[in-house]
Amino acid sequence: MKSVAEDLWKALKFDADGLVAAVAQQYDTGEVLMVAWMNRTAIEETLATGRVCYWSRSRRSLWRKGETSGQSQKLVELRIDCDGDTLLLLVDQTGVACHTGRRSCFYRAVRGGALETVSAVEKDPRELYGKT
Amino acid sequence: MKSVAEDLWKALKFDADGLVAAVAQQYDTGEVLMVAWMNRTAIEETLATGRVCYWSRSRRSLWRKGETSGQSQKLVELRIDCDGDTLLLLVDQTGVACHTGRRSCFYRAVRGGALETVSAVEKDPRELYGKT
Repeated sequence: MKSVAEDLWKALKFDADGLVAAVAQQYDTGEVLMVAWMNRTAIEETLATGRVCYWSRSRRSLWRKGETSGQSQKLVELRIDCDGDTLLLLVDQTGVACHTGRRSCFYRAVRGGALETVSAVEKDPRELYGKT
Repeated sequence: MKSVAEDLWKALKFDADGLVAAVAQQYDTGEVLMVAWMNRTAIEETLATGRVCYWSRSRRSLWRKGETSGQSQKLVELRIDCDGDTLLLLVDQTGVACHTGRRSCFYRAVRGGALETVSAVEKDPRELYGKT
């Protein structure tokens, strides 16, 4: 039997920076929570631990989702697209995914000729990031 | 009143190639269909026509989804994430989104130690692309 690693690494096409995009979706409600980036190490860690780990392009380091805020993501299933350059992570999100304290990062929508905020802050960001 | 253009262009952060990533999600079922890229012109056209137009990085041209295959996407709502570098397009997909003839491009999943195909071909790709 082929290992996941073998299959997966063959199918994945990392970009010039060694990254693939990853869409995180709440596994039961279907809500798209966020889009971030993963390198090979982040994917390996996520599969090994069952907790989602991204690659932070701004900090240039592994980003274990929730390690500061407590708002972690449990991996339910990892999927890969036809091109092999994007992942879909079905996750179980603890609390909120967005650093603004909203459930999803996609909280602004074009509606009726304006950019509107369409979802409310559920957790105070100061509470999420106040204690490091 | 501020125009959408003003609000939206101020909020968007295009990458060095002038692109943002766009996740297409079926508006009623929540299914994540595909991830592609858009430049400013593609976004303007999509908002103006109500039909989703991407930027094809491989062909370096506007890609009016479905213009060859007939499998178009009607825009229901355009959302933008907290960073301004990713869009979530709530769409109504005609037929299938994937060039393989599957509903979603994310048809492979890591399951039980292997990469498995988890959704079936619904339309023969030869039928979709045979007549240009």
